Amino acid sequence: MGSALPGLPADGARRVVIESITPCVDGGRFAAKRIVGERLVVEADVFADGHDAVSCAVLHRAEHEREWQRLRMVPLGNDRWQAAVEIVDLGRHLYTVCGWVDPLETWRGDLAKKHDAGQDVSVDLARGAQLIHACAARVRGAAERELNAWADELVAGSTPVAERVARAQDATLHALAWRHPDPELVLTREPPLVLVADRERARFSSWYELFPRSTVQGAGAPAVTGRTPRHGTFRDCEARLPHIAALGFDVLYLPPIHPIGKTERKGPNNAPSTSPRDPGSPWAIGGDGAGHTAIHPELGTIDDLRRLIARAGELGIELALDIAFQCSPDHPYVREHPEWFLERPDGTIQYAENPPKKYQDIYPFHFETSAWRELWEELARVVEFWAHEGVKIFRVDNPHTKPFGLWEWLIERVKRCTPEAIFLAEAFTRPKVMYRLAKAGFTQSYTYFAWRNTRDEIVRYFTEITRPPVSDFFRANLWPNTPDILTEYLQYGGRAAFIARLVLAATLGASFGIYGPAFELMEHTAREPGSEEYLDSEKYQIRSWDLERPESLAELVALVNRIRREHPALQSDARLVFHGSDNDTLVAYSKTTPDLSDAILTIVNLDPHHSQSGWIDLDLRSLGLDSDRPFQAHDLLSGARFLWRGARNFILLDPAQGAAHVLHLKRRVRSERDFDYFG
Amino acid sequence: MGSALPGLPADGARRVVIESITPCVDGGRFAAKRIVGERLVVEADVFADGHDAVSCAVLHRAEHEREWQRLRMVPLGNDRWQAAVEIVDLGRHLYTVCGWVDPLETWRGDLAKKHDAGQDVSVDLARGAQLIHACAARVRGAAERELNAWADELVAGSTPVAERVARAQDATLHALAWRHPDPELVLTREPPLVLVADRERARFSSWYELFPRSTVQGAGAPAVTGRTPRHGTFRDCEARLPHIAALGFDVLYLPPIHPIGKTERKGPNNAPSTSPRDPGSPWAIGGDGAGHTAIHPELGTIDDLRRLIARAGELGIELALDIAFQCSPDHPYVREHPEWFLERPDGTIQYAENPPKKYQDIYPFHFETSAWRELWEELARVVEFWAHEGVKIFRVDNPHTKPFGLWEWLIERVKRCTPEAIFLAEAFTRPKVMYRLAKAGFTQSYTYFAWRNTRDEIVRYFTEITRPPVSDFFRANLWPNTPDILTEYLQYGGRAAFIARLVLAATLGASFGIYGPAFELMEHTAREPGSEEYLDSEKYQIRSWDLERPESLAELVALVNRIRREHPALQSDARLVFHGSDNDTLVAYSKTTPDLSDAILTIVNLDPHHSQSGWIDLDLRSLGLDSDRPFQAHDLLSGARFLWRGARNFILLDPAQGAAHVLHLKRRVRSERDFDYFG
Repeated sequence: MGSALPGLPADGARRVVIESITPCVDGGRFAAKRIVGERLVVEADVFADGHDAVSCAVLHRAEHEREWQRLRMVPLGNDRWQAAVEIVDLGRHLYTVCGWVDPLETWRGDLAKKHDAGQDVSVDLARGAQLIHACAARVRGAAERELNAWADELVAGSTPVAERVARAQDATLHALAWRHPDPELVLTREPPLVLVADRERARFSSWYELFPRSTVQGAGAPAVTGRTPRHGTFRDCEARLPHIAALGFDVLYLPPIHPIGKTERKGPNNAPSTSPRDPGSPWAIGGDGAGHTAIHPELGTIDDLRRLIARAGELGIELALDIAFQCSPDHPYVREHPEWFLERPDGTIQYAENPPKKYQDIYPFHFETSAWRELWEELARVVEFWAHEGVKIFRVDNPHTKPFGLWEWLIERVKRCTPEAIFLAEAFTRPKVMYRLAKAGFTQSYTYFAWRNTRDEIVRYFTEITRPPVSDFFRANLWPNTPDILTEYLQYGGRAAFIARLVLAATLGASFGIYGPAFELMEHTAREPGSEEYLDSEKYQIRSWDLERPESLAELVALVNRIRREHPALQSDARLVFHGSDNDTLVAYSKTTPDLSDAILTIVNLDPHHSQSGWIDLDLRSLGLDSDRPFQAHDLLSGARFLWRGARNFILLDPAQGAAHVLHLKRRVRSERDFDYFG
Repeated sequence: MGSALPGLPADGARRVVIESITPCVDGGRFAAKRIVGERLVVEADVFADGHDAVSCAVLHRAEHEREWQRLRMVPLGNDRWQAAVEIVDLGRHLYTVCGWVDPLETWRGDLAKKHDAGQDVSVDLARGAQLIHACAARVRGAAERELNAWADELVAGSTPVAERVARAQDATLHALAWRHPDPELVLTREPPLVLVADRERARFSSWYELFPRSTVQGAGAPAVTGRTPRHGTFRDCEARLPHIAALGFDVLYLPPIHPIGKTERKGPNNAPSTSPRDPGSPWAIGGDGAGHTAIHPELGTIDDLRRLIARAGELGIELALDIAFQCSPDHPYVREHPEWFLERPDGTIQYAENPPKKYQDIYPFHFETSAWRELWEELARVVEFWAHEGVKIFRVDNPHTKPFGLWEWLIERVKRCTPEAIFLAEAFTRPKVMYRLAKAGFTQSYTYFAWRNTRDEIVRYFTEITRPPVSDFFRANLWPNTPDILTEYLQYGGRAAFIARLVLAATLGASFGIYGPAFELMEHTAREPGSEEYLDSEKYQIRSWDLERPESLAELVALVNRIRREHPALQSDARLVFHGSDNDTLVAYSKTTPDLSDAILTIVNLDPHHSQSGWIDLDLRSLGLDSDRPFQAHDLLSGARFLWRGARNFILLDPAQGAAHVLHLKRRVRSERDFDYFG
């Protein structure tokens, strides 16, 4: 073919192979994600040609540290090796695997086999002494002396061979020698992989969304009362905090709090505004000369916000702000940085559109501008501004309409200074786009949960997103509703549908959230048939909510959140297991702690209209249960206790009584008389 | 954390994403494999943020060429794109994927939607003209003029808008513009991936192994006759060629043909030799001052070998030689290059061992020697020596006991000059080691086939190795027996077992081989119970074979090979599909050509002792068959023709009559009377 012959490799004597390191997101292109306090289980295929023993270790360090920590890997069989690294610090870590053909391990095993077979091993003992002396030559001080002494003992003619063979197996000295392999034989996989360690709330969080302007307590929608409530303020939000705390939420998410544009402002139900009193959409950001770092005057001042953050903190609630990188036509950026927008041939600025739909109240940024560097810097400054104000959680609006590279850079940059920052990606788009955003660095992601209604849909989707490789980079946050999403299931399913979706979200997802007032009060009227938009949506008008209405789901929401707090099994998605049932309207799944000390089995009737019954077929092993010993299933929703034995158990769920069981399974049953059930 | 803030990326305005390119072996670390004449189907996930259209293309070239060929990819849905490259040349090729956010494609789609919705599109037409002028500025000559003219037409006020909107969709001009995207927006995945294109025999080959010294026709084993046959020669091999050609084989593989060491020589049945007349093992290479590039004098001369190669070629048979990188103690390397071997503390050279077993007639190379570079060069020269003699196929002995890096370098080097070279890896070892050797460059690999006896074992194993990712780098060569492997199944299964394993090997594997004389004559006596070694193995003594014995399987072997030659479906493993059966001793599978014009369904009774019957449940779609039209199943082994209809068909296989069906399925049945079956 006329091509040059391939040159010899640099390290032909380095015979070990390291393959298939996990976790490893897209071949190392992106960081894997874990939580401080968890263990990072690293695995790899490590082997060599021939029959020689290999050794290997995980190398790991915080990114800012110099020294690698080395952790010996243990074989799992089939050439797979494993070690588990404790994650102590927040932030970015590096890890990789090194391995080597280990002549001392080979020798140790061969020597024992030959001696057991009655063969003369004197030459082998001498060979071992050679290897150990060579190892000693690589170290200094006490270790050197210990190794040399050991080598000498192996060839001391005065000692009986059997004693020397036994001495050759000294575990402590082998461990010492293991720490000093011949660097010529050690292969380290380069470049190292990256791990981002987040705080616990990245894994386990309960979100409550409200519109701060709709916090004046009222008796219903304007359509019902005919009155327009006054504009709520951060002070009104403060007054709402005890309610949110009582419901058990730990994140309060507010839609954008910035000045709202007046040009092309939208009125109720997304119609063009016809009244100067229409408050506009909070996502049409920018007006009165102020933009993404300003506060809408009717909500209050920066001091009011600081007070709200502080008061919420006292109740264990963190504030999450909305990052929506788009502008109303009145945003100061439009005047000051026209180069950040696309100019149309007629000299106007390109508004948002999804042809033939037009959104003239919104100007998107033009990310292909040659001034993209300045634009990115400014957008990072916006997030950093709020981070400096003490906001550590950001719900990012439509991140899939901005470049992935922007997020990758921006999130890494913000987290360098604020490693506790959490970014939730509000993308409801195609699967690969959702996943790419998560890889780019989003801490949590909205999901397709709202539209996964049948058992098969739920099992497939949650099996996919809670297991590697997806779970290494994607953390779900489940929302049964949002201000944009009122599903058909909720529109037509009645109270049982709300309960089923609440229980599913809160038990399938360690992180979940509700668009609060509308969910508590089971708001379920769509703008028009076939739409998922709320009628009289808060996005375009001020609402007031009578949270004291007797049909409110507040009590159930509070109970569900208490169960989540009290049961660590529900605080992670890592051990979600689905169980069989012979009625496909009954979905059954469990979560357990790694030590199986806590096990929660949830069973939901997905049919909001009819009683459903069937036999559940439990995967007992995943629950740590014996097939021949009874166990208690304590329904944490109803308080009922059942005594079960074995895998198959009968379930009947009447939507009028309760659409779900959330069962705490207790294994250590002393006798059947211990149960109230037999009371 | 004190770390520096991450810098802006170089290409923040390049918004497109390219992920998950296939084929891609270990993230691009190794080459994928295909055959000249096949198509390389390249796929990738390509998408961008937002709603803009993306375009993408496969870039490909032979490694020695300068210019990339560009082939437009088409969308498969779910952001997956595909294009198929015709592979014309032998050797190494490069390929990758490039993509870009495509403003003209976006504009083209949006314009149509807006116009259809009755919106004013004058500004949009002007925007398109801008984009097209910008594209024209990137080209010269006629293309530039065509594009500029097109842009001008779109804004020609004298032309009705509807006409201009129609003009905006001109497919030819769009195709022209597509070829000249803005280079600032084009992302090319780097580095490119490597493809190795082999010749057809790498995919479809029929191997016959014999010991050239055992080619003197005789009447049985010495144990039977008491006579020791004379040493066969290359001339005797020549005389055997017509037989091998009649059997239908196209590769004749000879164990090592080099001088054999005398020191520690092994005698019959691997016992230490006690007679100077013992010929020794051909794998104990080196003696009388000659080694890996010499010919054992009793076999003949280099001219005899050349003649054998030429004669074989005339019959369509290629010679495959054995590459066994190890030495007898008498090999000249031992004297000339002691640094290539491991010296023991007592000054002797380390012989091969697998403690407590010792192989004192074999010295392995010490690949961790500091002189590994010289050793590798010498080993490459050995292969090149035989390649220059016209040998293009090499069966490599125990490659898993030599460094993977050696093979990667050596095979690439040999194939630079001899791209038609084929290397078969004789490794029977752990799965990941087998796969790594294939990734390192071996063209074909021995497999676990010999020990996969039950239906479940066969289905699992062949599903794994015939599909990506494994099939992108691993090509199976199936052997029911070898001089080292006489399975229990063959030892105790009688004639039916030999037939079943022959049919399985020849129809599951596009490449298969037999250790010929022993297979034809159903040699089945092991050295001792529990052993897979042949009694009186040819590895250690000269045998003579009476190939005319009436019970010989020669006729069946010839028939099976004829079926393989006549049916392209059997010449590839890419479309192997297993079909259901309600009796798990019946395994059913099919192979088809990509256009479904040839379809072979094989059904084997895996129980050599009993008749077995059951219902086969065909995956009709994979066979291109309709469920409501009859089709003919013509048994190419027995000649019988069956008329079948639908998926479920009854099968009875009596091992005394025939352990298998090899059915040619014919779809185009004119009427049922066409069949002999209805005679």
